[in-house]
Amino acid sequence: MFRGLSAFPLTPTTEYGIDEKTVHTLVSRLATAGVDSIGALGSTGGYAYLTRDQRARVTKIAVEAADGVPVIAGIGALRTSQVLALAEDAQNAGASAVLLAPMTYQPLTEDEVFGLYEDVTRELSVPLCVYDNPGTTHVHFTDELHGRIAQLPNVASIKIPGVSNDPAQAKARVDALRALIPETVTIGVSGDWTAADGLNAGCDAWHSVIGGLLPQTALAITRAAEAGDTARAITLSNQLEPLWALFRRHGSLRVVSAAAHHLGLIAEPNLPRPLHGLTAHARRDVIAALDSTGATA
Amino acid sequence: MFRGLSAFPLTPTTEYGIDEKTVHTLVSRLATAGVDSIGALGSTGGYAYLTRDQRARVTKIAVEAADGVPVIAGIGALRTSQVLALAEDAQNAGASAVLLAPMTYQPLTEDEVFGLYEDVTRELSVPLCVYDNPGTTHVHFTDELHGRIAQLPNVASIKIPGVSNDPAQAKARVDALRALIPETVTIGVSGDWTAADGLNAGCDAWHSVIGGLLPQTALAITRAAEAGDTARAITLSNQLEPLWALFRRHGSLRVVSAAAHHLGLIAEPNLPRPLHGLTAHARRDVIAALDSTGATA
Repeated sequence: MFRGLSAFPLTPTTEYGIDEKTVHTLVSRLATAGVDSIGALGSTGGYAYLTRDQRARVTKIAVEAADGVPVIAGIGALRTSQVLALAEDAQNAGASAVLLAPMTYQPLTEDEVFGLYEDVTRELSVPLCVYDNPGTTHVHFTDELHGRIAQLPNVASIKIPGVSNDPAQAKARVDALRALIPETVTIGVSGDWTAADGLNAGCDAWHSVIGGLLPQTALAITRAAEAGDTARAITLSNQLEPLWALFRRHGSLRVVSAAAHHLGLIAEPNLPRPLHGLTAHARRDVIAALDSTGATA
Repeated sequence: MFRGLSAFPLTPTTEYGIDEKTVHTLVSRLATAGVDSIGALGSTGGYAYLTRDQRARVTKIAVEAADGVPVIAGIGALRTSQVLALAEDAQNAGASAVLLAPMTYQPLTEDEVFGLYEDVTRELSVPLCVYDNPGTTHVHFTDELHGRIAQLPNVASIKIPGVSNDPAQAKARVDALRALIPETVTIGVSGDWTAADGLNAGCDAWHSVIGGLLPQTALAITRAAEAGDTARAITLSNQLEPLWALFRRHGSLRVVSAAAHHLGLIAEPNLPRPLHGLTAHARRDVIAALDSTGATA
């Protein structure tokens, strides 16, 4: 499950609710494109901003639309009891696996982060992916902590932040983590602009924001890396550099939101306030970047 | 309202709900002690971990127990629509003012932070205090942003993080902010171990964690500073240094939780998981620190 391309679609939302029809459309086209799994309710899917009912509903729609492609549902929340309820809902909605980031308000100690995963994995009957995303959670996992958590039952994968674009450094980072976790636990890379580097360095999966919008583009990079054609993976990724630069500048969520609108896939507004869509100026940059990649919906 | 000692009590909580009787007791003793306001549902009150219903209920109990002392209710949430609902609830429950920290999952731009305050202050009929707490929100307010927000209707105060223990630096920091905000907007200091410095430097209020547990202790510091006896304020604060050191090390929430239990004020567990109470070793340190201050309930 936690191998190849995991595509993370947007969840279009307004102050009045979720655009459920578009959720179905977005997931359905990923399944048709042949992605390996669908990451519903990841950070790109805005999980942190949705109610429990909305999240159950989105997971159910995603499972239907995925038509057999495994759906991984984000179950992160600030409180353990909420995470447990969301895990139950995700399993009832047919998710094949769950993704858990340790959301924080009060900074957590290492033992508290471990305790969260201990409490949650004990109750699961599907595999879990540890979501290491310091940019949103402000939790800085040590490899030692990853090693402890990876021994827990049902832990099947770790989603790590972006790696170095130096191949030796990227490989050293992946190898160091691999040495501390069971052989059965896979490693996935995020930070789209480093994905080719991560896959070439031995990551088993790419948790991809752009894959949720342009699945063929992300699949080409993934399949090249899987076939051992490291140079082609890098070349294809480098072609997307105008887009990656905007991801780094504005956050990938705001950029894919504007891109999806430009491609006619979603209406606006579609982000949960207080998040704003991009300015007109930044939108022009997004359109130019899309044009330079030749991307169409 | 946003002057003097604002005392922030705990909200004892378990996986089964809130200990409402203890919420009443904790607030009531603050009112009896003569604090200037009560900060219900601050970070110490665990607002980020509670449901909308729980928060409405805690505010209602706090207003009853406060017996005329103004209650400031925290209304922070990740989504603007949630904040608006919480603001409505707080006003309906009788809160005299609200406190709003810009909680984040996706990092917010300055315009998004401003937009949040713009959207919320437009709907308020009570004053608002801007809660600048980078340790939990990871929003780093510039003074320019504070200046913009302070012009909005209903903004009455800014709660700033701890200041320098160098008097000249602390005064320069408070003066710099003061120069950018309307005269009617007050400044409150948090970070208990810097409160005497902040009050001496001209802050109008102290938003106090220890004041929620040991109100007389915090009042003595506040009244000394208000009377212009800067040396006495510092001396009294320095007597609490063993406690401040533990606040800095473990986070003030975990320390006051253990201290309140030691003083017989609350049962355990009382923190929302994934937060853990302190270890046995750290608890001994807390008890020793309490003993050294001569604090009793």
